[in-house]
Amino acid sequence: MAWNTNLRWRLPLTCFILEVVMVVLFGVFVRYDPEADAHWIEEKRHGNISSDIENDFYYRYPSFQDVHVMIFVGFGFLMTFLQRYGFGSVGFNFLLAAFGIQWALLMQGWFHSFHDGYILIGVENLINADFCVGSVCVAFGAVLGKVSPIQLLIMTLFQVTLFSVNEYILLNLLQVKDAGGSMTIHTFGAYFGLTVTWILYRPNLAQSKERQSSVYYSDLFAMIGTLFLWMYWPSFNSAVSNHGDAQHRAAINTYCSLAACVLTSVALSSALQRKGKLDMVHIQNATLAGGVAVGTAAEMMLMPYGCLIVGFICGIVSTVGFVYLTPFLESRLRIQDTCGINNLHGLPGIIGGIVGAVTANEASIAVYGQEGLKKAFDFEGSKSRWSPQKQGQYQAAGIFVSLAMAFVGGAIVGFILKLPFWGQPADENCFEDDVYWEVPEAEKNNSYHHEDTTLKPVAS
Amino acid sequence: MAWNTNLRWRLPLTCFILEVVMVVLFGVFVRYDPEADAHWIEEKRHGNISSDIENDFYYRYPSFQDVHVMIFVGFGFLMTFLQRYGFGSVGFNFLLAAFGIQWALLMQGWFHSFHDGYILIGVENLINADFCVGSVCVAFGAVLGKVSPIQLLIMTLFQVTLFSVNEYILLNLLQVKDAGGSMTIHTFGAYFGLTVTWILYRPNLAQSKERQSSVYYSDLFAMIGTLFLWMYWPSFNSAVSNHGDAQHRAAINTYCSLAACVLTSVALSSALQRKGKLDMVHIQNATLAGGVAVGTAAEMMLMPYGCLIVGFICGIVSTVGFVYLTPFLESRLRIQDTCGINNLHGLPGIIGGIVGAVTANEASIAVYGQEGLKKAFDFEGSKSRWSPQKQGQYQAAGIFVSLAMAFVGGAIVGFILKLPFWGQPADENCFEDDVYWEVPEAEKNNSYHHEDTTLKPVAS
Amino acid sequence: MAWNTNLRWRLPLTCFILEVVMVVLFGVFVRYDPEADAHWIEEKRHGNISSDIENDFYYRYPSFQDVHVMIFVGFGFLMTFLQRYGFGSVGFNFLLAAFGIQWALLMQGWFHSFHDGYILIGVENLINADFCVGSVCVAFGAVLGKVSPIQLLIMTLFQVTLFSVNEYILLNLLQVKDAGGSMTIHTFGAYFGLTVTWILYRPNLAQSKERQSSVYYSDLFAMIGTLFLWMYWPSFNSAVSNHGDAQHRAAINTYCSLAACVLTSVALSSALQRKGKLDMVHIQNATLAGGVAVGTAAEMMLMPYGCLIVGFICGIVSTVGFVYLTPFLESRLRIQDTCGINNLHGLPGIIGGIVGAVTANEASIAVYGQEGLKKAFDFEGSKSRWSPQKQGQYQAAGIFVSLAMAFVGGAIVGFILKLPFWGQPADENCFEDDVYWEVPEAEKNNSYHHEDTTLKPVAS
Repeated sequence: MAWNTNLRWRLPLTCFILEVVMVVLFGVFVRYDPEADAHWIEEKRHGNISSDIENDFYYRYPSFQDVHVMIFVGFGFLMTFLQRYGFGSVGFNFLLAAFGIQWALLMQGWFHSFHDGYILIGVENLINADFCVGSVCVAFGAVLGKVSPIQLLIMTLFQVTLFSVNEYILLNLLQVKDAGGSMTIHTFGAYFGLTVTWILYRPNLAQSKERQSSVYYSDLFAMIGTLFLWMYWPSFNSAVSNHGDAQHRAAINTYCSLAACVLTSVALSSALQRKGKLDMVHIQNATLAGGVAVGTAAEMMLMPYGCLIVGFICGIVSTVGFVYLTPFLESRLRIQDTCGINNLHGLPGIIGGIVGAVTANEASIAVYGQEGLKKAFDFEGSKSRWSPQKQGQYQAAGIFVSLAMAFVGGAIVGFILKLPFWGQPADENCFEDDVYWEVPEAEKNNSYHHEDTTLKPVAS
Repeated sequence: MAWNTNLRWRLPLTCFILEVVMVVLFGVFVRYDPEADAHWIEEKRHGNISSDIENDFYYRYPSFQDVHVMIFVGFGFLMTFLQRYGFGSVGFNFLLAAFGIQWALLMQGWFHSFHDGYILIGVENLINADFCVGSVCVAFGAVLGKVSPIQLLIMTLFQVTLFSVNEYILLNLLQVKDAGGSMTIHTFGAYFGLTVTWILYRPNLAQSKERQSSVYYSDLFAMIGTLFLWMYWPSFNSAVSNHGDAQHRAAINTYCSLAACVLTSVALSSALQRKGKLDMVHIQNATLAGGVAVGTAAEMMLMPYGCLIVGFICGIVSTVGFVYLTPFLESRLRIQDTCGINNLHGLPGIIGGIVGAVTANEASIAVYGQEGLKKAFDFEGSKSRWSPQKQGQYQAAGIFVSLAMAFVGGAIVGFILKLPFWGQPADENCFEDDVYWEVPEAEKNNSYHHEDTTLKPVAS
Repeated sequence: MAWNTNLRWRLPLTCFILEVVMVVLFGVFVRYDPEADAHWIEEKRHGNISSDIENDFYYRYPSFQDVHVMIFVGFGFLMTFLQRYGFGSVGFNFLLAAFGIQWALLMQGWFHSFHDGYILIGVENLINADFCVGSVCVAFGAVLGKVSPIQLLIMTLFQVTLFSVNEYILLNLLQVKDAGGSMTIHTFGAYFGLTVTWILYRPNLAQSKERQSSVYYSDLFAMIGTLFLWMYWPSFNSAVSNHGDAQHRAAINTYCSLAACVLTSVALSSALQRKGKLDMVHIQNATLAGGVAVGTAAEMMLMPYGCLIVGFICGIVSTVGFVYLTPFLESRLRIQDTCGINNLHGLPGIIGGIVGAVTANEASIAVYGQEGLKKAFDFEGSKSRWSPQKQGQYQAAGIFVSLAMAFVGGAIVGFILKLPFWGQPADENCFEDDVYWEVPEAEKNNSYHHEDTTLKPVAS
């Protein structure tokens, strides 16, 4: 079966409509946060703010830029490991993220930054928009190579919406802490994506099997993505934490967890291969699981050794997942997970949620200090009578809510994406840039022979 | 016609002379800004500065590093899209920028940081030097592959000089605001480069036509450049803005404009191709036009939706430019613009200048607040009686001054570069690293056959 | 002669044991620095700290992230120039650095951050751990392609230990200043690595000669490493300097030195080639020597022109070293230096130590101011009666101590690594990823023919 993959009218139209809607909604709703508004000079005096450096910009902008790199270069290049899908990996990730951050500014704005009829945006909103889009990039990993850019834009539209609702339930209703988004970003993103790919199951995907592997240089490009994700993950997990010690601690915790994770990923990669050789897939992915899994607890007093243990476990779980679980999911559960996001974001995300719940549950005045405990978990105002144990229980509940949202939302979106007019590629053209991109001629002739028979767009 | 491309004495000599001159001029003129001088501990007490964090370093250094990445990795890799000119793209960009920043520190220093016979440099000078060199990198895009490194160094020498003069006229005489350099960097840089390439017109360039295209991996390398430019552009446009809300706002505005620009670039790229396929050239370049076009107005109250509109328009203008204007310029006006800088920097730069003039013209106390308006446009001291309308008019004048400087300066420099002894490549050797670089043997044999006949240096 | 290169049990076991030891030692010793501890809210009040922004995190975190990029992307990709060792370059660098930073946190912690039985870690410890690992990355450059990952882990274990001892001697006993580590990182790292590779001399390395060169794309990947090292070096040299002017000055000095270095590297590269063509090896490496050589003096009042002179000289020394010294060392002294670290880190490191000693010796109240001089060299407490001259002498002594530690330590570690059971590759399999990595099939067949005969693991 084949669909018409000529997107000449559909893609431009989709992009235009979405962007026009963005312009209108921004015009109606979005204004600057007081700290980014020209009135700040007056605000400052009224608020007795002594220095320009107290502007939130200086607390968060460096972390924002690191997160920005993770979303666009990190996720984009991580997925270039496919030999013939580099343009799609980097380019579609670019497209969906650029749209997604705009929509996320609105959705998250309505929930969290809505004042007197306006969404007031500042640097923290930019970070949160990037975070939200991060969950779409995660889900993209599951369907990579099998969907059209229109499908990606539609998925982004819905996923950002659902993400924002889920985030609102977790952060505002359940009052959960989730600094680095183990639950909101990774667990939700991964199981959303896995549900979508399950619905979009392609029984004849084996026809494009040879393009599902990497070549030497595509693996090196992917390492660019891996390393920028790995290096900047401490910024990711600390970017929206409280000023001061919380941000500081979140960075340290993530640094430690990631370091430990590399060693056990390498160990398992070697141990699980007959000749003891390392597999690039594991080095590119499993080494990052430690960052995912300290997402929730990053700003808590998890202790450096606690982080090492989390990283230790996740390197193992993730690598084992790549070797045994991904093939199992594909053959038995019909879940075709191109990038293995279940191993990098799904399982480590759940682990991260659990680690967060346990760490919150164990929090005590002895460890945090009286005021420290209050500040770390916002045990003030409506939460002034909460105990760490109650916090821990709500944290645990957050995992299940995220999973439920992911499954239900993913199923709905999956069915929408299954409609036959989104320009999706035929099974034999999956993982192939030539479907949606003008690919340089020289290359086409070399590595790509059956063009005439397989890639003709079929009238729908 | 062929020139002697063996640079063995000419290139070393040029580099040595330039660098020796730099050493001497730095020795005579350059010292540390008080905030970077060991006396600062005393300054601090005298000035009642309460904390080390008030040092400008902490306000601007993160942005500086982002700008630095844009100049060296961003511009360098953006130009690696050519299949056989990766070394030249990254390497010559490295060379000219490394020289240019030194010369810019001096030129800009004489105009803006000259105190008691000394140029006092701090982190803001480093940023401005990078900015100045940015305009040279822009111009390099027009002549990429057709000039020798000596020509590039000479062009840098003159362009940095002219840039500094133009910048002085705009910022000091016309009192124009141009935070992200839509006029000073992009408009000036682009039309300077286009004038140079017009003068250096090569009628037989078709002889190296096959190397003017990309191959699969060269396009992926170019995306590294694109993404680092795109991601760090908010830092670029906010790097030298006023502390506090202005810097904050500039980053937000740029983020918004760039996001919108991606969607319309993709839309047009698909709409203008017969089969609706996306063209990497547009994704690599047009997506950045939104950053150029909010350069002037970035720190103004352009409003997030205003930025979306600017990005929206520029994605269209830029992509249409690549499809229709670049071929037209080449065939009719004899302007051979290798990277299409007219579409990425020229037109969006002019749009940016206009947007800035209009935004300044519309500025009001209602939007900025009494003090905010004063601070945003420096309506103090000699400008204390200026109105926003007057500011708008002067902004508009800045565009024309920049264009005039670019055309006149570019013509002069073009004629200098036309002299036959700078080691420029023959038409049939353009876009070919092998002329100036030791290229690994394996590659040479594969992709490059006619070496003996075409690349022999001809005695001049 | 051949060794068994199947690491299936040895590598996992090594990784597991090392990581378990890390977990235990972190559990016993490592806690958060007060500024990263939840008690900070109380500390802050007691210490009359007025703002969260005074947390060291905000002074150093942006620099930390830049240093982090240098270690993982900078060093990792710099070494990808080898045509068939990209996985090993990036991957093993990743592995050794991830282990090394953990061990460095402990070793440096015991020496410098040990309070009441605990190592208290904050952002400065993270930077220092990265620095320490930097010296291992340097040494890795000498043995690149000739050792197994197990050997690298063992080398890291010992080198981090020796680094910490040497650093303690220099910084605490000799009271030396070494902001950017010309002595502690570069001189020590380079001569340690050169001593190791001297002991591991392989007489028949010519058998894998053809893989010791680069190909077109591997050179472009290496430029990613070069540029990130070059751009972020100002952060490297300023990351742990005193708050305020010292950090500011260190960044400016490094920026200047690096810019000058590029021009003389290019000059010499062209001058020393028969046809005046540039050599990528020099552009990738010698351009960085200026950063190494201002490491010690970066925070001193070296003056911008002083930095240009240092960069000027180092570009020449380093390029000449690559052309004449590296072949000489290999043929006469049996020192096989894969990346030419003697030219990039060794000689410039020594120059840096000398520059630091001379600059300290010349320090005066006229240049620094009374208080500035005191603060710059810690002429307080036990050092209150030191003169700049005495500081200069101790600086000079630091060079010799570093060299001695490197030679003795390198010799010991070299002999340990010479033991035949670490899974090192045979001479004919050096510089070849296929020994330790699953390399994509397509590639294997193309560029790699003699696999059957040369790569069979031989029973040991």
